[in-house]
Amino acid sequence: MAYFSKHYHAPGTAPGTLVSTDSDHKMSIHLMDYSGDHVEEQRLATAEECQDYLERDSKTWIQVNGPVDANTLRALGDMFDLHDLALEDVLNSGQRPKMELYDDQVFLIAAMPMFDGDRLEVVQVSLFAGPGYLICLCPLEEDPFEPVRKRIRQPNNRRFTSRGIDYLLYAMLDLITDSAFPVLETFGDKLEEMEIDLLEHPRKQTLTALHHLKRELLMLRRVLWPQREALTTLMRMENSLIHQDILIYFRDCQDHSIQIIELLESFRDMATSMLDIYLSSISQKTNDTMRVLTIIATIFIPLTFIVGVYGMNFEHPESPWAMPELGWYYGYPMVWGLIIAVTAGLIWFFKRRHWM
Amino acid sequence: MAYFSKHYHAPGTAPGTLVSTDSDHKMSIHLMDYSGDHVEEQRLATAEECQDYLERDSKTWIQVNGPVDANTLRALGDMFDLHDLALEDVLNSGQRPKMELYDDQVFLIAAMPMFDGDRLEVVQVSLFAGPGYLICLCPLEEDPFEPVRKRIRQPNNRRFTSRGIDYLLYAMLDLITDSAFPVLETFGDKLEEMEIDLLEHPRKQTLTALHHLKRELLMLRRVLWPQREALTTLMRMENSLIHQDILIYFRDCQDHSIQIIELLESFRDMATSMLDIYLSSISQKTNDTMRVLTIIATIFIPLTFIVGVYGMNFEHPESPWAMPELGWYYGYPMVWGLIIAVTAGLIWFFKRRHWM
Amino acid sequence: MAYFSKHYHAPGTAPGTLVSTDSDHKMSIHLMDYSGDHVEEQRLATAEECQDYLERDSKTWIQVNGPVDANTLRALGDMFDLHDLALEDVLNSGQRPKMELYDDQVFLIAAMPMFDGDRLEVVQVSLFAGPGYLICLCPLEEDPFEPVRKRIRQPNNRRFTSRGIDYLLYAMLDLITDSAFPVLETFGDKLEEMEIDLLEHPRKQTLTALHHLKRELLMLRRVLWPQREALTTLMRMENSLIHQDILIYFRDCQDHSIQIIELLESFRDMATSMLDIYLSSISQKTNDTMRVLTIIATIFIPLTFIVGVYGMNFEHPESPWAMPELGWYYGYPMVWGLIIAVTAGLIWFFKRRHWM
Amino acid sequence: MAYFSKHYHAPGTAPGTLVSTDSDHKMSIHLMDYSGDHVEEQRLATAEECQDYLERDSKTWIQVNGPVDANTLRALGDMFDLHDLALEDVLNSGQRPKMELYDDQVFLIAAMPMFDGDRLEVVQVSLFAGPGYLICLCPLEEDPFEPVRKRIRQPNNRRFTSRGIDYLLYAMLDLITDSAFPVLETFGDKLEEMEIDLLEHPRKQTLTALHHLKRELLMLRRVLWPQREALTTLMRMENSLIHQDILIYFRDCQDHSIQIIELLESFRDMATSMLDIYLSSISQKTNDTMRVLTIIATIFIPLTFIVGVYGMNFEHPESPWAMPELGWYYGYPMVWGLIIAVTAGLIWFFKRRHWM
Amino acid sequence: MAYFSKHYHAPGTAPGTLVSTDSDHKMSIHLMDYSGDHVEEQRLATAEECQDYLERDSKTWIQVNGPVDANTLRALGDMFDLHDLALEDVLNSGQRPKMELYDDQVFLIAAMPMFDGDRLEVVQVSLFAGPGYLICLCPLEEDPFEPVRKRIRQPNNRRFTSRGIDYLLYAMLDLITDSAFPVLETFGDKLEEMEIDLLEHPRKQTLTALHHLKRELLMLRRVLWPQREALTTLMRMENSLIHQDILIYFRDCQDHSIQIIELLESFRDMATSMLDIYLSSISQKTNDTMRVLTIIATIFIPLTFIVGVYGMNFEHPESPWAMPELGWYYGYPMVWGLIIAVTAGLIWFFKRRHWM
Repeated sequence: MAYFSKHYHAPGTAPGTLVSTDSDHKMSIHLMDYSGDHVEEQRLATAEECQDYLERDSKTWIQVNGPVDANTLRALGDMFDLHDLALEDVLNSGQRPKMELYDDQVFLIAAMPMFDGDRLEVVQVSLFAGPGYLICLCPLEEDPFEPVRKRIRQPNNRRFTSRGIDYLLYAMLDLITDSAFPVLETFGDKLEEMEIDLLEHPRKQTLTALHHLKRELLMLRRVLWPQREALTTLMRMENSLIHQDILIYFRDCQDHSIQIIELLESFRDMATSMLDIYLSSISQKTNDTMRVLTIIATIFIPLTFIVGVYGMNFEHPESPWAMPELGWYYGYPMVWGLIIAVTAGLIWFFKRRHWM
Repeated sequence: MAYFSKHYHAPGTAPGTLVSTDSDHKMSIHLMDYSGDHVEEQRLATAEECQDYLERDSKTWIQVNGPVDANTLRALGDMFDLHDLALEDVLNSGQRPKMELYDDQVFLIAAMPMFDGDRLEVVQVSLFAGPGYLICLCPLEEDPFEPVRKRIRQPNNRRFTSRGIDYLLYAMLDLITDSAFPVLETFGDKLEEMEIDLLEHPRKQTLTALHHLKRELLMLRRVLWPQREALTTLMRMENSLIHQDILIYFRDCQDHSIQIIELLESFRDMATSMLDIYLSSISQKTNDTMRVLTIIATIFIPLTFIVGVYGMNFEHPESPWAMPELGWYYGYPMVWGLIIAVTAGLIWFFKRRHWM
Repeated sequence: MAYFSKHYHAPGTAPGTLVSTDSDHKMSIHLMDYSGDHVEEQRLATAEECQDYLERDSKTWIQVNGPVDANTLRALGDMFDLHDLALEDVLNSGQRPKMELYDDQVFLIAAMPMFDGDRLEVVQVSLFAGPGYLICLCPLEEDPFEPVRKRIRQPNNRRFTSRGIDYLLYAMLDLITDSAFPVLETFGDKLEEMEIDLLEHPRKQTLTALHHLKRELLMLRRVLWPQREALTTLMRMENSLIHQDILIYFRDCQDHSIQIIELLESFRDMATSMLDIYLSSISQKTNDTMRVLTIIATIFIPLTFIVGVYGMNFEHPESPWAMPELGWYYGYPMVWGLIIAVTAGLIWFFKRRHWM
Repeated sequence: MAYFSKHYHAPGTAPGTLVSTDSDHKMSIHLMDYSGDHVEEQRLATAEECQDYLERDSKTWIQVNGPVDANTLRALGDMFDLHDLALEDVLNSGQRPKMELYDDQVFLIAAMPMFDGDRLEVVQVSLFAGPGYLICLCPLEEDPFEPVRKRIRQPNNRRFTSRGIDYLLYAMLDLITDSAFPVLETFGDKLEEMEIDLLEHPRKQTLTALHHLKRELLMLRRVLWPQREALTTLMRMENSLIHQDILIYFRDCQDHSIQIIELLESFRDMATSMLDIYLSSISQKTNDTMRVLTIIATIFIPLTFIVGVYGMNFEHPESPWAMPELGWYYGYPMVWGLIIAVTAGLIWFFKRRHWM
Repeated sequence: MAYFSKHYHAPGTAPGTLVSTDSDHKMSIHLMDYSGDHVEEQRLATAEECQDYLERDSKTWIQVNGPVDANTLRALGDMFDLHDLALEDVLNSGQRPKMELYDDQVFLIAAMPMFDGDRLEVVQVSLFAGPGYLICLCPLEEDPFEPVRKRIRQPNNRRFTSRGIDYLLYAMLDLITDSAFPVLETFGDKLEEMEIDLLEHPRKQTLTALHHLKRELLMLRRVLWPQREALTTLMRMENSLIHQDILIYFRDCQDHSIQIIELLESFRDMATSMLDIYLSSISQKTNDTMRVLTIIATIFIPLTFIVGVYGMNFEHPESPWAMPELGWYYGYPMVWGLIIAVTAGLIWFFKRRHWM
């Protein structure tokens, strides 16, 4: 996840300029139409094919997976009267999650975090909801909303199918919001591991991993804060789209959203605190190393001096001052006695200082 | 207490899905019915047995201890018309404390911190309060609300029994809130101990303990903040459940809640500050160690050089330059004089620098 | 000042439970009654003796000094109709400062900081003010409100005596608030001293002192913030107790309260900053020590090697390779030449690096 | 970018004092007049020449590039009735972005960040918008608003030309706001590079670069925060200048503005975190260096002591205590045995401590 | 600038107690009276002399420079009906800037920062403004408001003289506010210098200077924040003193006030960041020193061991094991070969680790 991951046009470009992004992935359009006991599904070749379903009284869900091309987007824009600026936002990925209200239509940009292997990725999902229809554009080739589809397909699930577009919108936003939980669970596990590493074997790799985690938490937070805000705005808007009895579901979804952010914040706090732990652990290790060196050096350097003294070659046939110790009967054992005394003294000194 | 301790369903699961958690503990249902001078208690086998009490004019308190199974929960849900989302929250532990108002019913999730041996645990207590009844679900096998029960059982305690469900709700929330005080007291004592350790004998274990404490404080804060908020919402809601003259009790409870959070915050501040103290203490220790090494090395390394000089074997029968000192009458004492002079000079140097 | 200094009952205890605190100090009750030119003072043996004064039109100030016993408190509670929760708060010291309005009565818990020798202490003062009376309970044996009493006693001080209970309440709150100024002055002086110490002779004692100061500032802040808030609530309440023309005095008092908090915050900022200074100073000192060691070691270790070379005992009667230098005419002076050259070179190197 | 980059008059100077700034750059005035299909462009020699265009019904855009001289400014001020304080602000660069409403005229100071080589520069753009005219003053010699001009010149671009002054104002503010994106992209790339450097080869240069980046981010934030605020004020003002259907464009612009600030904040967070990483990396490196020294010293210092012992010259013809080892048959190999044993022991010690 | 610089009376002192401060400076009173084309100036001996001017329709500005004595203050208080608390604030310097409204009179305490040599000082200016008069008390002997006086004296400056007291008040507050700009400019320059010092030659003096700067910034911020607030309150008050068309001037003044605070905050941020830089630089330096020591020690300690080996005195007439190397023909050159090989190996090791 790069520091700057936004697609944007050169400053001064006219608003609503649509440029398809290059991609190897294929676009697919999937339509689902349901009401009460009736559920119909179809793969569409072009956006225009959905026209028939719009006149019906049923709920129509148009799902565009993979990178949408500018023409399809323009066709959808014309059919559903979507605003130019909204269409531009769909193509320029890396947008800030937001909620925009155009007359009786709601436009939402949501961010769905997920792991692509070991790398965190944030997928931008664009949603248009209006009376009787919901358009969802998701750049992933595989449809992440399959669980919702399954619930609709379930026979006799009138609890879903007889409700309006607002319930479908809730189901999708709930899935998007909750997709942060497995991500956070992984982060929590990682933090747990790092913590043990840092306290026991502070290594450079842990520092690197910690830094990357902190960065991912920061990036995630940057999209989840405005997402929560957008959800709040959606619930507060004075619009007939969301019915009173569905509001409680949105509130539950918002509650999860708040809990996710609080978890994120406490993870960030802990990651910062762990950095301090790392520094302290390294300092402690340096201190330990230092202590070993000091003990060894402090014991052996004076001893080396002592033995150095008696390695000197002073010689004078008559002088009684010319290293008489060298000729003493017990000279050598006395030096050893001195060596042992100095060593014992220093060990006592180190013990008293709690260095040993 | 894990970083991520929330139970959740896979994203996309239908709201209100109830899955019993596996547990070795047993569930028990306890009913208490009181009004004025009448107090009645009973252990129930199934949730349905409480039906009789509901039609009476008295206050009925249904306490479910231990892990509630999905069927009992569903039965309670049907009898008291509890919302699907609320029931789901009861089972998915690790919820954010919150207050939800459904018509004339209040649903509260509260967090009760306690020590399980040396480990901090946060127990999720779920409360439903409606006209004439209060349902409380607590995953602990032992009933933590026994003190409240005792107060009701007290003969002639009309101050309690003649008041409504709101007073019972207050009594329970007060117990939940105040249960943070002993926890904080323990934390305060731990901090006190660590402080002394850190300033006097900075050790790795203290660092680890401090880190764990900081983590527990953070986790605790994550549940107590929304709890306070929920309490505020409860007091402000426009509902006939809580009477004007009971409000003052809730205000007292909220006051404790604020004081607890302020204590938490100041504990966190001190814990962070202590981490800095640890780092400074370690640096100070390294500096002290360093100084000992430097003093010893600086004194003995030059001395070793001096005695090394006179250990050289230069010899030339005729040269007056071939280490004449070795043959001087007072050569050896002069070297000792030099050694003492150098040592004295260095000690003077260290004294001036306040290193000794 | 302990981290956790609150007295509390076991969670689940009935509200309004009164337990006298054990204490060696004695309780005394002092009554002052004044209006216009009339001032009367009396020591009371029991709380009930004040009954006579209550019916008069004058202002009655009942001051309870020292640890109040539960019976006296209950008697006062009955006479003045004080709320159970308020009475409990009076006894459970370590409360959060607060303002509570019961009908025409105001209950205030205020915190008065003072030094007990070198230790900061925060005394909890409880105030009840109603039409014509003010009750003040202070756990200190000596009356801290003597200066107010003096002002009342002053002859012809109608500016005080002709005003209502609100002016007396202001005078007392003003004294409580202002008592933080000498405390802050002492803190300021301490900071000043520590600053000099830290920058010049960073020692462990200063670190300990700084940590204790930081802790005291934090604890002080924990009580002064809610005190300011309580004052604001008092001024904003819609009650006839405080007259419009006295409000300006309360505003002045609140202003001091804000200034005190701002001072506290800037002291905390500086204390935190000083911790960083300490760490930097220690690092600087380690660096200096290190440099001395490195210079000494770097100069003498190579020299010791050189003299070591010529201390070797290679000997071969015929070999021209067996340490011929030892037999050279100028061998020994040449070694000294080498020693001086190496030393000069290293000194030049250290000078260039600005290490000497 | 200097810490303090504001031009200001001496305190006490009368408001509205205009002093031209010295500059080698030349001023040029460019006029664009359009409405529907008609577009006209002209270079003006003096400000007064635009008079003719003002009476027409078309939109007139007067662009002053380069350092504006006081006379031209005064002339514009007289013609368009611009406020003295506003004119002063135009000349005193380094102003805080702001929005000021004078009757039917809007005055805006905006900040346009751009790289001048490798140095970040913030250009102050001053805008006056009134009914039918927009005056823009930009101290750059080259016109940064050329892309907007191009869009107007495009044949049949009635979507632009038929709209009012508000759409032109939006187009210009959009360009100014979006010009932060390339700047942030560069910052993101720099951060990415530094991160790799810091984790792999922490060097002083990276520290310097990081510090400069942090400083630039801080300076940028200082102008972009008030800019966002000014934009919000502009959108909320009760004025007929901005029409309802253009508001959505301004909202898009504001959205970008918020996203830019959020990016800035997260960049700052990462830069601060990187400083900690640097410190940790350096500490780690010191620890590594330390370890090498300790291993070498700890192994060789005792060995040097051992060989020092047998370099002593104790000699006594009769004493059996005078270094008998020197005369043993296997004395020398035994010393080597001791040396190898000590080395092996120390290596085992280091391995166990994970130092090797 | 001391940490605690407030003058205050002992807690419990009656409000409005006036005590002159001891000072060597002299007080002087200056009066300026103007309206339209008429301007009159006079030095007053006593406060009472201004009486004549008050009855006129003109604007009267009474400026008291130097330490005001309690009597003069009381005289002014009586003449202009100034509130006791306000008079007390004038004498007790070190007040928090504030705005107080008494009926038709405005009382302002403002803080004017300035450098007294190299020391930052904050001068407390007290202002009373009422219909037709403005009293300004400033403890400096020299009048800092001379530039305003000059503007009034200017012939035909009806733009100033024909406006009311509100414009005079603005002119004075503008001068007070803007006096922070030169101070900030100096701070900016100092920061710039320190930054270079810290990155290139981190020294203790820079640390001390940085700490003092940080402290001054904090102190300055403590007075400028409430000053901004007071200005806002002044502008929002519902009072006839400030006319609608003068408000825009006050808004400009407030704008400067905000910009000053934002600059202060960013300076503080940078100062904090520089402290981290200092610590990192010191650590880097320690690391560099360490590396030199390690390289030297690691190369020479093993070499000293080698030459120590051949300084041993093993001798046995028959043993082939008694240091046979000493008798080898090429023994000595072989030792040199070993020395060179070990040195080369270690240099290669250090090169690979990028330590050389």
